[in-house]
Amino acid sequence: MTDERHGAEERLRELIAQVQPTDATYEKLAWERLDSLTKPPRSLGALEHVAARIARIQRTDHPSVPAKAIILAAGDHGVVAEGVSPFPQDVTWQMVANFAHGGAAVNQIAASVGAEVVVYDVGVARDVSELPGVVDAKVRCGTRNMAEGPAMTREECAEAILAGAQAASELVERGVSLIGTGEMGIGNSTAAAALTAVFCASPVAEVVGRGTGLSDEGVAHKAEVIGRAIAVNGAAELDPLGVLSALGGLEIAALTGVILSAAAQSVPVLCDGFISGSAALAAVALAPAAADYIVASHLSAEPGHAVVLRQLGIEPVLKLDMRLGEGTGAALAMGIVDASCRMMSGMATFEEAGVSGSEA
Amino acid sequence: MTDERHGAEERLRELIAQVQPTDATYEKLAWERLDSLTKPPRSLGALEHVAARIARIQRTDHPSVPAKAIILAAGDHGVVAEGVSPFPQDVTWQMVANFAHGGAAVNQIAASVGAEVVVYDVGVARDVSELPGVVDAKVRCGTRNMAEGPAMTREECAEAILAGAQAASELVERGVSLIGTGEMGIGNSTAAAALTAVFCASPVAEVVGRGTGLSDEGVAHKAEVIGRAIAVNGAAELDPLGVLSALGGLEIAALTGVILSAAAQSVPVLCDGFISGSAALAAVALAPAAADYIVASHLSAEPGHAVVLRQLGIEPVLKLDMRLGEGTGAALAMGIVDASCRMMSGMATFEEAGVSGSEA
Repeated sequence: MTDERHGAEERLRELIAQVQPTDATYEKLAWERLDSLTKPPRSLGALEHVAARIARIQRTDHPSVPAKAIILAAGDHGVVAEGVSPFPQDVTWQMVANFAHGGAAVNQIAASVGAEVVVYDVGVARDVSELPGVVDAKVRCGTRNMAEGPAMTREECAEAILAGAQAASELVERGVSLIGTGEMGIGNSTAAAALTAVFCASPVAEVVGRGTGLSDEGVAHKAEVIGRAIAVNGAAELDPLGVLSALGGLEIAALTGVILSAAAQSVPVLCDGFISGSAALAAVALAPAAADYIVASHLSAEPGHAVVLRQLGIEPVLKLDMRLGEGTGAALAMGIVDASCRMMSGMATFEEAGVSGSEA
Repeated sequence: MTDERHGAEERLRELIAQVQPTDATYEKLAWERLDSLTKPPRSLGALEHVAARIARIQRTDHPSVPAKAIILAAGDHGVVAEGVSPFPQDVTWQMVANFAHGGAAVNQIAASVGAEVVVYDVGVARDVSELPGVVDAKVRCGTRNMAEGPAMTREECAEAILAGAQAASELVERGVSLIGTGEMGIGNSTAAAALTAVFCASPVAEVVGRGTGLSDEGVAHKAEVIGRAIAVNGAAELDPLGVLSALGGLEIAALTGVILSAAAQSVPVLCDGFISGSAALAAVALAPAAADYIVASHLSAEPGHAVVLRQLGIEPVLKLDMRLGEGTGAALAMGIVDASCRMMSGMATFEEAGVSGSEA
């Protein structure tokens, strides 16, 4: 067992080495095609930027995302013992059951864009292996309380990353061309805020938020717990895997793996909100070139998310004041990404359509 | 012929009388259901507001928009003689041909959300009756030059409104549950700016923009032409039909009719950008309750559009810096509206899913 776990960190290094930067040549070709299409140049604004980004990732001037899936990773958080969430920990497995039965927001939104939702248990505190369609990739039954020490060992964290990477690889093998990230885990906005504070060197007060609905007092307490967790773990001095192990979550680590694996396979990954954003920070800290493959689906109402996106240097597609997680923002933005690719690949050029150009 | 044309204004009055306000009771019921679903209350932000608005229009707490269509009205503008557009007038019919053959942006974006695009010729200067799928509802071959006098007679304008209303009625009869507006007409951002200046009592400088790509000098000239058109027609003193006749376009009038007809039939109408917005201003000036049935798809990069939406008191769903028209914003937002309805109607409640509520 010990050898296998040490093996996880080694395999993670191999995955990281596979992440290569995208090639700017393809973005140039993308803009040449976009500017030849029957519309005033750049008149589709952000839609053109999304299309150009996908084109660059896919190394083509005819991008397409016919098959879409959300990887929804679930895990519990020992830090809930500190009273950082208004919802009880049981809501994690109850919501996993809700995902399995199609009753959650992400199920409905994903259906509206024709995307599959694949649920991975990487760390739910309760046994959920009998729920239909839930993939058992449990590393352990929830993290430890990060306010008292590391949430995970480095080996556990690397295992969770590899579980997410495996999930992404299986989807790509099945022909999925656009992967979205989603998560469920009561307490995980506390972990995400702690990770963001360290990876972005930001004051905790700027990245902590209400999560599922804390009061002002609750937010202040949550900030205090996060500060304690960062200090106890000496997190500011750790390497990226150390930070993620100390302050992360099993589902956050899994999403880090999803992003690394998508990047390694040159597949665009639509990042959901704040929790997914903290996984992206970890992925980019481990493999800086991974940033090239991320599309930010929306700007969450959680204040830390703007800090995350600034650090990643990525503009969000949607700004709808959403703060649910689950992959709801990623699923919603899949429709926009699909439209942008169809526009870029399916439109006629001025020449093809026989439309006169500008006289100006 | 004269009698029939006088009849148009009379029939328009009948249409206007059919537009009744929505009932706030249904919005209250909508929020009761939204707050019972398995998510922290209001955590889907604007998506919940969109769903509640559709629910109120449809008088249900389970809204749905299974069948969607864009009505794309095309017409030419006499004011192009003043040199207000960098593209030649021929681009109107050339783009109508492009729509007919599926090569334009709106075709591709509409396909991505499963929406039909129906093209109506209400005033293209050239005969386009042989193009496949283009509905011939031509009132006249383009408007007159509004800088020299009224763009249309009141009767012509009412006829164009009724042509759009007829288009919407036919779609609703066929089961379409969400109608989007789209337009094509070289010169129509000049007409839209003139209408916006008068209907919103705004300075021309605040509502005039680059359209398909004018230079700073071009924008200044366009503003001067608009000011002249408003003065020549004494537009500030006219009734709503008079304003639309003097400064509008045949395709803009048709979209005014689309909005009035959708409202009269309690069908939500997704308004595209600035040109469509000027049609909405006319519709609401004619029948104030029509505003209840409008969903604003996006905020256009044309500066006048923010003025339009402020006047209508409607928040746009998307902000993507788009300024193409054709119904591209409406088509893109149809995916968001569909997702919001599926979310509201398909999600499980806390009780149904057996998920614990907040302890706070």
